[in-house]
Amino acid sequence: MPRVGIIMGSDSDLPVMKQAAEILEEFGIDYEITIVSAHRTPDRMFEYAKNAEERGIEVIIAGAGGAAHLPGMVASITHLPVIGVPVKTSTLNGLDSLFSIVQMPGGVPVATVAINNAKNAGILAASILGIKYPEIARKVKEYKERMKREVLEKAQRLEQIGYKEYLNQKE
Amino acid sequence: MPRVGIIMGSDSDLPVMKQAAEILEEFGIDYEITIVSAHRTPDRMFEYAKNAEERGIEVIIAGAGGAAHLPGMVASITHLPVIGVPVKTSTLNGLDSLFSIVQMPGGVPVATVAINNAKNAGILAASILGIKYPEIARKVKEYKERMKREVLEKAQRLEQIGYKEYLNQKE
Amino acid sequence: MPRVGIIMGSDSDLPVMKQAAEILEEFGIDYEITIVSAHRTPDRMFEYAKNAEERGIEVIIAGAGGAAHLPGMVASITHLPVIGVPVKTSTLNGLDSLFSIVQMPGGVPVATVAINNAKNAGILAASILGIKYPEIARKVKEYKERMKREVLEKAQRLEQIGYKEYLNQKE
Amino acid sequence: MPRVGIIMGSDSDLPVMKQAAEILEEFGIDYEITIVSAHRTPDRMFEYAKNAEERGIEVIIAGAGGAAHLPGMVASITHLPVIGVPVKTSTLNGLDSLFSIVQMPGGVPVATVAINNAKNAGILAASILGIKYPEIARKVKEYKERMKREVLEKAQRLEQIGYKEYLNQKE
Amino acid sequence: MPRVGIIMGSDSDLPVMKQAAEILEEFGIDYEITIVSAHRTPDRMFEYAKNAEERGIEVIIAGAGGAAHLPGMVASITHLPVIGVPVKTSTLNGLDSLFSIVQMPGGVPVATVAINNAKNAGILAASILGIKYPEIARKVKEYKERMKREVLEKAQRLEQIGYKEYLNQKE
Amino acid sequence: MPRVGIIMGSDSDLPVMKQAAEILEEFGIDYEITIVSAHRTPDRMFEYAKNAEERGIEVIIAGAGGAAHLPGMVASITHLPVIGVPVKTSTLNGLDSLFSIVQMPGGVPVATVAINNAKNAGILAASILGIKYPEIARKVKEYKERMKREVLEKAQRLEQIGYKEYLNQKE
Amino acid sequence: MPRVGIIMGSDSDLPVMKQAAEILEEFGIDYEITIVSAHRTPDRMFEYAKNAEERGIEVIIAGAGGAAHLPGMVASITHLPVIGVPVKTSTLNGLDSLFSIVQMPGGVPVATVAINNAKNAGILAASILGIKYPEIARKVKEYKERMKREVLEKAQRLEQIGYKEYLNQKE
Amino acid sequence: MPRVGIIMGSDSDLPVMKQAAEILEEFGIDYEITIVSAHRTPDRMFEYAKNAEERGIEVIIAGAGGAAHLPGMVASITHLPVIGVPVKTSTLNGLDSLFSIVQMPGGVPVATVAINNAKNAGILAASILGIKYPEIARKVKEYKERMKREVLEKAQRLEQIGYKEYLNQKE
Repeated sequence: MPRVGIIMGSDSDLPVMKQAAEILEEFGIDYEITIVSAHRTPDRMFEYAKNAEERGIEVIIAGAGGAAHLPGMVASITHLPVIGVPVKTSTLNGLDSLFSIVQMPGGVPVATVAINNAKNAGILAASILGIKYPEIARKVKEYKERMKREVLEKAQRLEQIGYKEYLNQKE
Repeated sequence: MPRVGIIMGSDSDLPVMKQAAEILEEFGIDYEITIVSAHRTPDRMFEYAKNAEERGIEVIIAGAGGAAHLPGMVASITHLPVIGVPVKTSTLNGLDSLFSIVQMPGGVPVATVAINNAKNAGILAASILGIKYPEIARKVKEYKERMKREVLEKAQRLEQIGYKEYLNQKE
Repeated sequence: MPRVGIIMGSDSDLPVMKQAAEILEEFGIDYEITIVSAHRTPDRMFEYAKNAEERGIEVIIAGAGGAAHLPGMVASITHLPVIGVPVKTSTLNGLDSLFSIVQMPGGVPVATVAINNAKNAGILAASILGIKYPEIARKVKEYKERMKREVLEKAQRLEQIGYKEYLNQKE
Repeated sequence: MPRVGIIMGSDSDLPVMKQAAEILEEFGIDYEITIVSAHRTPDRMFEYAKNAEERGIEVIIAGAGGAAHLPGMVASITHLPVIGVPVKTSTLNGLDSLFSIVQMPGGVPVATVAINNAKNAGILAASILGIKYPEIARKVKEYKERMKREVLEKAQRLEQIGYKEYLNQKE
Repeated sequence: MPRVGIIMGSDSDLPVMKQAAEILEEFGIDYEITIVSAHRTPDRMFEYAKNAEERGIEVIIAGAGGAAHLPGMVASITHLPVIGVPVKTSTLNGLDSLFSIVQMPGGVPVATVAINNAKNAGILAASILGIKYPEIARKVKEYKERMKREVLEKAQRLEQIGYKEYLNQKE
Repeated sequence: MPRVGIIMGSDSDLPVMKQAAEILEEFGIDYEITIVSAHRTPDRMFEYAKNAEERGIEVIIAGAGGAAHLPGMVASITHLPVIGVPVKTSTLNGLDSLFSIVQMPGGVPVATVAINNAKNAGILAASILGIKYPEIARKVKEYKERMKREVLEKAQRLEQIGYKEYLNQKE
Repeated sequence: MPRVGIIMGSDSDLPVMKQAAEILEEFGIDYEITIVSAHRTPDRMFEYAKNAEERGIEVIIAGAGGAAHLPGMVASITHLPVIGVPVKTSTLNGLDSLFSIVQMPGGVPVATVAINNAKNAGILAASILGIKYPEIARKVKEYKERMKREVLEKAQRLEQIGYKEYLNQKE
Repeated sequence: MPRVGIIMGSDSDLPVMKQAAEILEEFGIDYEITIVSAHRTPDRMFEYAKNAEERGIEVIIAGAGGAAHLPGMVASITHLPVIGVPVKTSTLNGLDSLFSIVQMPGGVPVATVAINNAKNAGILAASILGIKYPEIARKVKEYKERMKREVLEKAQRLEQIGYKEYLNQKE
């Protein structure tokens, strides 16, 4: 039974939003992923948000671009924590998405992450679930350790071989 | 029976949104005005948008600020034309409201007017109704003529008395 | 006899503005499409705006980029509803076009849609005409239903085959 | 023992950040509130973030303005969920704070709320804790119900007495 | 016979635009000042722009705010040089005015000055006329010399009395 | 003897600034074009600006990008009219160039044109010179007529063959 | 003999720029402070920048607003380190000043600090001088320690008396 | 023993940050270059900043993108001068990086250079070191002379062969 629901306004958001799925898989957290358009399928959006809790969903990740209403509207219907991913747009680079998602009025917060950073939405979901499920908290800690080790290894290599050779090897 | 429905996300938007009511009164167009919050009363918003047409509403004017989802969500539920008024915010001056209202995805337009310009929303509603009701079209024409005369009178006075005296008299 | 007039400031706007024509064709609404430059052919612009109504035009769609004056100037001359399409620019991404079109002064509204979203201008025109012509209103409803079904089908497919397969098939 | 830690970069942020405290009090959630400056007391910030979990803190709310590094730095040290409140600035209105908090790199999310909206940070914290503590989830639901009732009452009053009288009574 | 025509979209622009008049008076350049609204009196605007040259006008200064079309439209009708003054707006601080005036398409330039800086519009007009009229060029030079002396005197006083005393004397 | 001096901060601005040269050639106006960097060759910049008038230059066109100080600094040294061309930048798209050029303080105007629009700088220079030299004024008028005819021809073709065929022929 | 030269474009910048003087006094660093306008006194600016080094100046702090050319122009003439202070403007809030100062081209850096933050310019100057003069480095360290203690005291007081009492005492 | 420490948040910043290394090599200034992530390796960042001085580092250059906390956090821990390089981002073009680096609070300055301009960070570091080491000051002067000569040569060539030939030769 999925604990995290990943939804997006359009299948064009999928290349971005799949990062949330990938990181949840890495953490071994059960999730579901689907398309729920606030503007094209408002009834479906209402149903989804209303029933999420009783279906066992504990955190919702919602991504959208432009006048990105999906995260905020879902947050207005459910009392579960909702994480919003502003998707980059071709005209305003996602600044419109960011403002539409983060600037929620008093009473209805959306936990907003960086533009296009669905990976962080997945990590934030894990971090939230980690409060309740110690094994998830442990995995988040391990992930951060792994990330740290990778940076340290890169730093060490850069210091050893110098920036010219480092850049050569990357090409 | 009201032909225009004026709705807003919060009663703090009323000092702005009343301008739409005032201009519709000036045009003799029947309207209703109320509060419908997309985020705090999503069910009411759905009901309002779903039933507007059969209650005789022909145009909806929706004002909201910040992550302003009301106009776009109403437009996603009804097929009536929806006019959106971005309300100025204390932090981002209404740029957030503007982006949240105007940047709608393909299929669900909102007819957006200038930030805080609910008066223009009323005029646009009249102009739209004027296609069907010639007497409203006539009133819009007369309004534009009146506006023009007022500018011409001001121009004439400025030319006659000069800018110093003109500014003195305004104080 | 065309009911909608689609005009644009330059033929470089045509790849964007043709979307308005395409959607009007889909709705079976008669339209005309031409170039009317506020800055290069101001007389033609005046003539167009002044005569539109008596030629039977009921809604005008005007697209322009940069210091985009066409929609607002046409709105100042006619009392017909004018829909403005801000065309994306190579330097400011259409933010200049958006501000030039939406920030109209009191008395002269332009019904502004999203940057480059001429398709929505067409749908808004249909929605406005739908007040007067019930068969157009019906077509807008059907369009929204079709759009909804398409999203539902995509959602169903994504749920069935998973995001990895879904993305594979798109490539 | 506090479950939520509210920290801010400077006591000038307190008038904003106290809203988080107030709403947590309303929900009956134990919290602590103090000043932790990333830039002026980096050691203290490290200690705070490193020890928060073992002191029983489950969610951290961090507010800061300008080059607002506190939320992101705390998030880099702890694996607890961190909620960031961008505080409005006198020069860039909090756009600098928003970008500094929300645009975190992959691996280290901050759950960002609207500029100056510490109240929503408190509600989000409650909503997150609600996953683990059903009585908190119940209180969030009740809060949303209360908020909804208040809007409905205002809407009813506005519909009954009209906008002129409504605005008169507010003055 | 006036050589410079100062026009503005509304009498609310007069407190800004009068600076252009004042500096032209200081230079002893004959000017006229009036209201010409592109949006409320488009016919008047056309007439003004078409007839300016034969009435002896050699430079036009046009100020407007928001969707500020006046300078660009006048520039599209006349071949005289047009100087545009973006007037500060209450919502977007004049960024909308600036973009609407400066981002003109190829073929129709507007010589744009800083937001609200009608004084510089007057100086620019003088500088342009100075090409033809040597006595105006001389006055511009003298003005710059005077301005320089004033700065030098202030600098000298600041150096002599120190910043504390300098600020005290200003209060 | 050149009447217009075209200068730019770097030879990387040449592909943009050459448009000014081309249009001046089309108008038959003698010009000179060279590189004058405010930041890399400040002495040369001073010399250029100080001697321009006595060398017969009547209008200066200056283009620069980023912290674009060249137009404003030249305007501070000469009393000739200075036209500024904000060159597009790879990071801020020329918004930095625009602000650095247009937002000049009282006393030192720069006649700013659109980002990257050196062509308009050339036309503006011609329009300014046209006050003194009637044959240049005549050429500006003819240019505007030609531009108008070209738009009218395109409009006619679009109306005759329809947008589909029109777009086909462009490819 | 002053080691730091504080200059500003106008005496209206003095209330901001005096903060640099105050902090340098606190550090016991000799400085001079005066007005040098890039646009109104370009010759003085050249002289100042050219002679600064031989007069013993080791760091220059330059503040300016709008099209803020002073810091960059000084940096182009001297090889001393130049610290730029973007002064807040009434229209664009200092974003124009920031872009004009920080976006310098390759070869001519300006060490830019936050908008209106002349205090930080003073601290940065001290920090730079601290490389050469150990007693200045020591004072910067002490200053940071003092700043840290002040925050810790405030934090302690807030923790002891609670946010309500803390805010009461501040009023 | 390196005098300048170049650090960056990620090896993806290396293609930008290597410019700082290259220019320091050109000046013959000893430096070290490595990866220090504020968010992924906060402990390493603390160690680096705390020990830099005693290892002989005199200036730190720190580059980062997005919520770019590295320069400011390092500046909060060391009392050495810190130069910040805002790295361009794919979504907000580096405006987020710029705000996160430059808008530091009172007490903790970061000497910020232009977006992506690590070369200028290197020159600024040299210019700062030049206060203490006259031979470095001399090299900075020579560099500026060389730069000037290059511009003068380009200017001369452009004047000799004309812009058409000049552009041809560049291709």
